[in-house]
This record gives sequence, C-alpha cells and structure tokens, in this order.
Amino acid sequence: MTAEIICVGTELLLGNVTNTNATFLSQKLSELGINVYHHSVIGDNHARLSELLGTALTRSELIVITGGLGPTYDDMTKEAVAQCMGLPLELHPDLLEKIKAMFAGRDFPKNNERQAWFPKGAFILKNDWGTAPSCLIEKDGHTVIMLPGVPSEMKNIWNTYVTPELQKRQDCILVSRYCRVIGVGESALEERLEHLLKDSMNPTVAPYAGNGECMLRVTARAATKEEAFALTEPAVAAIGAELGDNLYGVDVDSVEQVVFHLLKKSGLKVAFCESCTGGLIASRMTAIPGSSDVFECGLVTYSNRIKTAVAGVPAQIINAHTAVSAETAAAMAEGTLKVSGADVALSVTGVMGPNDLPEGPVGTVYCGVAGPLGTRTVQLPLRRSRDRNFLRGLTANRAIDYLRYYLLDLERGAK
Amino acid sequence: MTAEIICVGTELLLGNVTNTNATFLSQKLSELGINVYHHSVIGDNHARLSELLGTALTRSELIVITGGLGPTYDDMTKEAVAQCMGLPLELHPDLLEKIKAMFAGRDFPKNNERQAWFPKGAFILKNDWGTAPSCLIEKDGHTVIMLPGVPSEMKNIWNTYVTPELQKRQDCILVSRYCRVIGVGESALEERLEHLLKDSMNPTVAPYAGNGECMLRVTARAATKEEAFALTEPAVAAIGAELGDNLYGVDVDSVEQVVFHLLKKSGLKVAFCESCTGGLIASRMTAIPGSSDVFECGLVTYSNRIKTAVAGVPAQIINAHTAVSAETAAAMAEGTLKVSGADVALSVTGVMGPNDLPEGPVGTVYCGVAGPLGTRTVQLPLRRSRDRNFLRGLTANRAIDYLRYYLLDLERGAK
Repeated sequence: MTAEIICVGTELLLGNVTNTNATFLSQKLSELGINVYHHSVIGDNHARLSELLGTALTRSELIVITGGLGPTYDDMTKEAVAQCMGLPLELHPDLLEKIKAMFAGRDFPKNNERQAWFPKGAFILKNDWGTAPSCLIEKDGHTVIMLPGVPSEMKNIWNTYVTPELQKRQDCILVSRYCRVIGVGESALEERLEHLLKDSMNPTVAPYAGNGECMLRVTARAATKEEAFALTEPAVAAIGAELGDNLYGVDVDSVEQVVFHLLKKSGLKVAFCESCTGGLIASRMTAIPGSSDVFECGLVTYSNRIKTAVAGVPAQIINAHTAVSAETAAAMAEGTLKVSGADVALSVTGVMGPNDLPEGPVGTVYCGVAGPLGTRTVQLPLRRSRDRNFLRGLTANRAIDYLRYYLLDLERGAK
Repeated sequence: MTAEIICVGTELLLGNVTNTNATFLSQKLSELGINVYHHSVIGDNHARLSELLGTALTRSELIVITGGLGPTYDDMTKEAVAQCMGLPLELHPDLLEKIKAMFAGRDFPKNNERQAWFPKGAFILKNDWGTAPSCLIEKDGHTVIMLPGVPSEMKNIWNTYVTPELQKRQDCILVSRYCRVIGVGESALEERLEHLLKDSMNPTVAPYAGNGECMLRVTARAATKEEAFALTEPAVAAIGAELGDNLYGVDVDSVEQVVFHLLKKSGLKVAFCESCTGGLIASRMTAIPGSSDVFECGLVTYSNRIKTAVAGVPAQIINAHTAVSAETAAAMAEGTLKVSGADVALSVTGVMGPNDLPEGPVGTVYCGVAGPLGTRTVQLPLRRSRDRNFLRGLTANRAIDYLRYYLLDLERGAK
C-alpha cells in the first residue's frame, strides 16, 4: 500500500511549530509495512488544500491528514475532504451531545457544533483526549484518515483506534521490537552491528538516534503475530550479546521505566537530589503511572545554601571542592538518603550553561548514588553543547542510567 | 513573493529524522516577508522529484530544496533541477580542485567529482562547513536554491550567503507578535476577538491552541521593520483590552518566563512544593537561563510522609482534609516557605490518574501560594483527561499562572 501524509496548519508554514506529526506517522506507517512517498504541509487555505487532495487521490491509496479539524473558521479539512471525495457532510447527533456535555456548566460556543459534522459514511475515530473527533473514510479504493493536529491527541487516536483498523486491511502482521541503548553512539553502533543492519530483510533492523541515546527497531512480518515475534528473537538476542548492559531495555519507553521496574522488583524506595537538572529527573520518574510505589521525595537544591539547609551537605565540602565535584555529589546523595528515609538516592550537580562557571565549563556533571552498596560517584562523559535544554535532557538520561547500573549490581550481588 | 520548500531524503519519509530544516527555512523566509505555501518531502527518487519540481515551478516563484546534493548514487537533486529547468550541467574546474584538495593524502572516490557539476548559469553558494556545494539559479522569473540536507551546513549557508541575496530582491519586511493567553479556550477566544480575526489583512491575526493555553499571532508587513511593528500595535492593544490579565505576555516564550521576570523585578526568591506535578514546575523554571537569580529550592513531596517530614505539613491537616485539599495546599506552601527561606512559595497537590483516588477524581488539583500577601489557595478548573502527561503539563501551566496572579497583585498593591 502506498501512503502519503498531509499536515494542515499555517503555523507549520511559518516555522512556529516543527512537523513532528509527520515523523510519528511515518514511523507508524513504516512499522505497518506501508510505504510513504510524500509528506506535504499546507496552510489553512481551502483552495490549496483541495488541489493537494486532488493530486494525492491520484497517486496514493492511503492519505493521512492532520490538523484543521478544530471548531474555528480556519479549520477546513473536513469540508475540503468531503468536497474532493464527492461526499456530503452529515450531522452526528450523538457526537454533538458529547461535545455539549464537555461544556456542561460553561457557555457552549456555537462554532463547536461544526465538530459533529462528518463526510457521509465516515467511520468515526473516538477522541478520548480532546474535542476534535477524527474519522476514516473509504471510497473507490482510497482510504483517507483525518486526525487532530495536537500531537498528544493525534498519537493516542492513532495508537488506540487507527492501528487496529489498518491491521485489518493488511495481509500480513508486522511486529516491531525496540532495543534501547545508552552509551554507544550511532556510528559506533552501526559499525558493531553491521552484519545485522546490512541488507536486513525479515526482520529488518534500523537504527535511530535520539536525545543522548539510540534505538534499534527490529521489524518482522509473518502470517501471525506469534510467527513474526519469533522471527525478531534471534536479532534481538544478537543485539543483546553485542551490546551487553548498554542495551538498557527491549520494548520499554525509557530508561526511567527500567529503573522503576528494578526498584519495584527489589522493593526499594528512591529519592533524588537535583541541582543542574532542576527537577527534570523527578519529573520524568513521576510521569510513570504508579511511580508512587518507588518514589516519595525529590529535592531540587539549586543554590549552595539549599544544598546545605535542605539536603544536609556540609558547607565545608562545597567550600573545599566546589558545588560541582564528586565530593559534593556524594554528600548530596548521602544527605538526601538521610532526609528522605529512602533506600537509595541519586544526586546530580553540574554546569548546564549558557556560560562556563568557575566550577567548570559547560557540560561538567557529577552524579552520586548512595544506598546499600555504599556511595559511588561518576563524572558523566558529556560533550559540550550550546543547547542548554538538550544538555539537561542528556544529563538526566545519563544520570538515571548511572542509577540503573547501581541497581543492576545490587541485584546481581544479592543473587 | 511566494515560496515553497522541498526536502529530499528517504530518511524523512521513514520517520528516522524530523524535518527541522523546513522549520528553520520557514522561519527565515517569514522574517524576509516571503510567503511559504507548501512544504514537501520526497524520497531519493528521480521520477517523483522531477514531478514535484514541475508542479512547484507552476505555482511558486522561489523554490528552496534541501538534500540530495551528496556524492552518492542516490543524490540526484542537481540532475533533476537541471532537467526540469532545461539547463545542461557544467563542470566548475575550480570547485573540482577544492574538493580534490579536501581529500589530500587520501583516496579520491571518483563519484565526488559529481559535486563540481552544476546547472549552467548557477550562482555557487560556498559551503565552508562541508563538501556539498550549494547554488542559486534564476530563470524565467523563478529562483531555485539548492542546499545540503545536513542542518548545520544548511543553516550556515543560509545565514551567510542566501539571506543577503534574497534581501536584495525584497520590497517589504514582515514583523510577527505573539500574544499568549491562559484561561480562555480557543473557541471562546475566537468569539470574543471575532472583529480582529475575521478578514484581517495587515496585520493578520491568527489563533493557535497549545497545551493548556492559546496564542494569537499578529503579523504585519511594511517597507521597514519599524513601520511593520507600528502596524501590529493597535491589534496587540485591542487583544490586551479584551483579555485583560488572561493575556499573560506578548513576545514571551512561556508563563514561567513572565513569572521569572516578575520575580526578578521585585527581587523575590521563589520555592516550589510539588506533589502531583512531580518536579515539572521546578524543571520548567530551571530551563530558563539565569533562573538561579530567582529560584533556589524545589521540593517534590510525593508521599504524605514526605509532605510532613520534608515540607513540614502537620499530619493532622492531611488526616482531617486529605492530601488533596485547599488546607494541605496551604500548609505545603507555608511549610516550604519556612524550610527554604524563600520569599514566596507555590504548592500543587492533586490527582493525575490514570485512576481516581479516595482523595478525588482525576483532575482534582489544589494550589497554594504563601508570601507577602499571606496564603491563598485555589482549586484549578481542570477538565478530566486520560492523558496523564497532558494533564501534568496543563496543571503545571495553570499553577505557574496562579503564582503570576499573586505576583501581579503584589506588584499592583505595592505601587
């Protein structure tokens, strides 16, 4: 099946927003074995959208459109699609009731009624996360899917409702496995796994570089899910054999998810003491549903005064070694362990920029872990980066990974 | 002038790479007052690229192409452009010498010679950052610019060599202002500002919905930057008059940036005590360079035990009112003020899901602020959402905005 992706929104053409929707949809279509040959972005303009849709209908079997489904006058995707496919719009009274219910107790702006109108015969895709409902239309060998432009809504609708519909239309099943790696760069990864990556057919193995980590996607196709899964197994095992503990997980979302499971399995509670990451590590851990099982306390000790007053770091340690040092990282972890009553504590202190500090140049970061194996510290192997938020994300990732190694040692020692 | 952007690369169609080149080029073209009406992404495929170029030449005066300029067989942009514009390729011997010089002492792979061939009459844009040279071609009222796909090379060539060339060809400047709004939904916003939005020409006014907030972009064009700015002023003033304090800022990035400036102006230090947002508020505040001027301490008090042990919330308050209550929010803010020695403290406690709790259903959130005006609390007006991370982001945004109102009252009372 050939597909194309159309993203509607003037904000994309002005560069206010980066088109991450196209990236997500491309990955998901690729996982389903569907070839994507075009991405297009078009503004909130009826004539240009209609023209593009006309062209798309001549060259693609599947057209996925995001954006332009809202209640306002510049949202015109549904009207343009209905016109190009020769379908009238019809009201879905049940949807109208639901939309009205979402405004219970508030004024109902009349233009929201537009959200309950769809091209005749459309299969409605529920939007559990917002008011713009989506739909799938099939006519004359073409499938058109309309999704909201807001990424969180779009992704949820795709994963929950679109994927099963498209799978029904496929003659084989695709299974993808995600191998996540920290501590090996993309080009080194490609060299070490060349035999797996090159000319891989079934399964295919494809590398992706992310924020301070890499991912290998292993995708196999077969008649059944079980057969496809079995086909992925030798490749996943080979990746694990080559990468060892640098492979932090398979089919997990993030390194904090792995740490969450290690903590839960061992019944340990964790606390964080963050200086340069400013709460990012706690924020990432608490983004996991159920994180209260393993996490009770985070301290963001941005200033030296607070490192002493709240995390109990002796002032003389900071004076002797500066706030960005292995010694201070150790004292932060130990102090936080005591203050919080947790079983294990992770600390991070460093220089995120934009400017170098007397304590060190941008990218200097120390971590500490205090717990049952005693206190350990490390200077993280970070490159300089002029992008403060990129560096914060990278630092959080590497710090959480350092805690993972501590927990792995604990687990293996305890066996 | 109307423009379009074409990005060539199969890696974009597979979702391996996000198309940040299109974002950058859109911003730069918009700053030059050039309207971008289309983005397209195409794979490394001669036929589809030629077809797209043919269409582009019928509808756009300026075509900016990135990617497909390298030395390998799948790099075919120059050949396709030359063919579509009816121009033969010609060798630039000086460029060939330069490319050969870059391989001094190494084997010179013969396919690198291709990088010295350009469509006849092309104006060569130097690439000081890589081997793929770029060019600008003008023919029959069309301008075609070819740039490398590697973002750092592309951006440097654009800023250094392309911008001056395009400025010579322009007769107007565009200025955009960004009005940011919390507490008014997109459809209500549009109804209240209908007179500004509808048929707006110069300036144009366009609404955008984000994560728990809205943005209005006001864009004007004129002969000079000053004139264009002056044209935006009445619209920005009218938006301010209609929305009052719901307009949290103009030409700012986020509500925390506004809070940062309010704190800095008044010389106050802030502390946060977060339960349900788990460090997200501290993380957002510390993402601002220079945030250490106003922020020293954050507490993530996820469990009731830590609320008492670290933030000093009396256990009897939690027992009497539950952890998700105005009383607990007040005690968290007051306790954090004392523990941290800050001037003002913001607390957040609530239920983020996925499951309802005995303390309340998902979306129940209380905030407290303690400081010079005494302690205030509020229950945030949040909708239920099944997306835990969306709800966390929304909660953080609304909580920071609640602190903004406190600081505004403080500032106005102090005058």
